[in-house]
Amino acid sequence: MKNIRIVLVNTSHPGNIGATARAMKNMGLDQLYLVAPKLFPSDEATSRSSGAVDILEGAIVVNSLEEAISDCQLVIGTSARERHIPWPLVDPKQAAEMAHAEQLATAFVFGREDRGLTNEELQRCHYHVHIPSVESFSSLNLGAAVQVIAYELRMHFLAQKGQTVTKKWDVPVASVEQFEYMLEHLERVLVDTEFLDPNAPRQVMTRFRRLYQRAQLDQQEVGMLRGMFSAVDKLVAGATIESAIQKKDR
Amino acid sequence: MKNIRIVLVNTSHPGNIGATARAMKNMGLDQLYLVAPKLFPSDEATSRSSGAVDILEGAIVVNSLEEAISDCQLVIGTSARERHIPWPLVDPKQAAEMAHAEQLATAFVFGREDRGLTNEELQRCHYHVHIPSVESFSSLNLGAAVQVIAYELRMHFLAQKGQTVTKKWDVPVASVEQFEYMLEHLERVLVDTEFLDPNAPRQVMTRFRRLYQRAQLDQQEVGMLRGMFSAVDKLVAGATIESAIQKKDR
Repeated sequence: MKNIRIVLVNTSHPGNIGATARAMKNMGLDQLYLVAPKLFPSDEATSRSSGAVDILEGAIVVNSLEEAISDCQLVIGTSARERHIPWPLVDPKQAAEMAHAEQLATAFVFGREDRGLTNEELQRCHYHVHIPSVESFSSLNLGAAVQVIAYELRMHFLAQKGQTVTKKWDVPVASVEQFEYMLEHLERVLVDTEFLDPNAPRQVMTRFRRLYQRAQLDQQEVGMLRGMFSAVDKLVAGATIESAIQKKDR
Repeated sequence: MKNIRIVLVNTSHPGNIGATARAMKNMGLDQLYLVAPKLFPSDEATSRSSGAVDILEGAIVVNSLEEAISDCQLVIGTSARERHIPWPLVDPKQAAEMAHAEQLATAFVFGREDRGLTNEELQRCHYHVHIPSVESFSSLNLGAAVQVIAYELRMHFLAQKGQTVTKKWDVPVASVEQFEYMLEHLERVLVDTEFLDPNAPRQVMTRFRRLYQRAQLDQQEVGMLRGMFSAVDKLVAGATIESAIQKKDR
């Protein structure tokens, strides 16, 4: 992500600079350029950064967009959808792919809270990126827009490294053999407890199989189920002995 | 998106409720549940909602998470990565797919600014969703987290409808024939202006072809180029006549 910088143009609210720094640090970005911010540094930015002060302290303040992007090879500007002359337009996912693809020195440029980027600024960008908002209420908060772009950059970065969020389970998944033993044990218990009539089993076992297979049981869970069935086994055995004794007593 | 609600649990900062409402409306969500918010309604929430007051006014305030999710069929809670007992964990994209797949009544649950959701609350969720932040600085702003989830929900919604951001060009793309005429015209001009030596053309035309093909010219752009070449043609013709006159005068 070292090849990527975030550029904020003429930001009015220092809180948005802080929110940007926080979103950047959350997502592993660290190069922030501020083009003529209204107020910087400021306590509000520091407070809203929620600890991402290193990003704020490292921010480079310049007077013009030109200075912020002159050494970049790929410039992507955020834009509301319709412009007079259409420009190559991508969604945040595509923009993230581009930024990572060739490791070009890349700037993501974000405009003013109220008016975005000017046409002249937008024309300095190779691509425009549009966060697909509802047309009748399309203007995102500046920090929220940075968050979405930074999130897509990180998703793509992790995907490239083969890392994904997804289950990291603490216990190995049960093997088919372990699963089948468990299911056989369940069936014996169901018959012994007279829940299941072996002469008219209907779809009961199929439904149990479907349920437990869907849950993709781990080995500990299989062990827990078998423990429970064994406890029932004991009850059944006790009841059988009891009933034998009662018969004998009669 | 009518089947999806956003649930905020014990929110401390009214600004985050406003930011949530704005992000929701931007992305086409409209059902907000607030579980025992510290302060609501509030001027700060209204101000930060930036016009999404309808979302705030329609928000349903309840006392417990249970009330907010009891009529839901799928509950997805936001979570930092590591928990004592791992739970089925998905990324925001997968969570958005789930929420749309079967149109189940779905809740996305967001915890407190400082401590997230409790273990008990997390165990009420069918899935946990993790926004893949940097481990050493992993806590997103609440409004920013809602923005990311709402963005993915909208991306998936639009993809299902076959709608994508991407180029909507104002002029039809040029045909191969139009393009080839333009390129032939360019070559004549280059020869006439003596930029190109027809006896030693090297790779000049190949490079021009590659450049213009890469740009995927539209019909108006082809027309502009040909107009420019015609203007050069006239200069060349004038220069030829001039030179003929000069020869004659000698």
